Amino acid sequence: MSLINQLVQSLQILPGVGPKSAQRLTFYLLQKDQSGGKKLAETLLEALDKVRECQKCRTLTEHDLCHICANDQRHSKQICVVESPTDIVQIEQATDYQGSYFVLHGKLSPIDGIGPKELRLDLLVSMMADCEELILATGSTIEGETTARYLSHLAEKGGIKTTRLAHGVPLGGELAYIDNSTLAHAFASRVIL
Amino acid sequence: MSLINQLVQSLQILPGVGPKSAQRLTFYLLQKDQSGGKKLAETLLEALDKVRECQKCRTLTEHDLCHICANDQRHSKQICVVESPTDIVQIEQATDYQGSYFVLHGKLSPIDGIGPKELRLDLLVSMMADCEELILATGSTIEGETTARYLSHLAEKGGIKTTRLAHGVPLGGELAYIDNSTLAHAFASRVIL
Repeated sequence: MSLINQLVQSLQILPGVGPKSAQRLTFYLLQKDQSGGKKLAETLLEALDKVRECQKCRTLTEHDLCHICANDQRHSKQICVVESPTDIVQIEQATDYQGSYFVLHGKLSPIDGIGPKELRLDLLVSMMADCEELILATGSTIEGETTARYLSHLAEKGGIKTTRLAHGVPLGGELAYIDNSTLAHAFASRVIL
Repeated sequence: MSLINQLVQSLQILPGVGPKSAQRLTFYLLQKDQSGGKKLAETLLEALDKVRECQKCRTLTEHDLCHICANDQRHSKQICVVESPTDIVQIEQATDYQGSYFVLHGKLSPIDGIGPKELRLDLLVSMMADCEELILATGSTIEGETTARYLSHLAEKGGIKTTRLAHGVPLGGELAYIDNSTLAHAFASRVIL
């Protein structure tokens, strides 16, 4: 197979990139932005080589501890449990949360053989020593909810308060575009103004 | 800047990739498909190093001549002129054309300093020795049309017939979704059944 076709194929591993866009990207990289392409390939190789899990919270980092765990301004009285490292980026951008995180890299799913061991809940438990609140920010899917419930039992045993992100109508969201379960939940959980 | 952020930045050179999707791609490459990511980076580096223009038709190839120019089953009585190498891929997939191609890598645009020299029309002229038909497959933009007209004059001087891709309603296209100029053109150029 020609190098060009190999590149078209390789690009198709990216989520959302099909044959047509892989071709467009290939010619873009080879013609329009060769230096950007070179930088991209080199950065990708270096990141694949060096990036690993933070020894404390399991987010991805090139160091032993991520920049949040290494920052002594952040406390661990609150631990926010998320499914993936991207969730941390989003919460950091959206809030002024000053506590710690723990990344599960998945959610409990016995059918796929993913139990507490695979999610390294042992690490989470050891982080929970001086924790006062476990913020459960797993997704609102069935597995995300199951995981949250499991973690909440775990925290209860240690006498730690657990909280869960609020559900409801997104800010700026029109009712017309909201699914029925969210709307029903938001209606039932309505708050006094 | 951390390696992860460098990768997020590097991915944003890709057309259609903004900060959010660059982040999604980064974590995908570092977590879900590391071997695919490695292959992608290596292929990209090798392609950037080796791929260059075909000495005859100017499409991209890793050899001196592309696989079409190197194929002696293909004749050069017809030369199809396109703006970019991707156009060749599309025509090859859609038709059973057996002639040659010539890639302009752009279109005439005096305001951007792109004239006949930049499009290497000298190479095209030297290819036209035993050509009988120049198929003008440049885009249907103002610059694409100008380029086609220029090439048609050039071919006329050499006594070579020029043709242009037909314009009209796309197959399977509903009239409701077609722009007015295309519809007006298709209406005026209607054919007898």
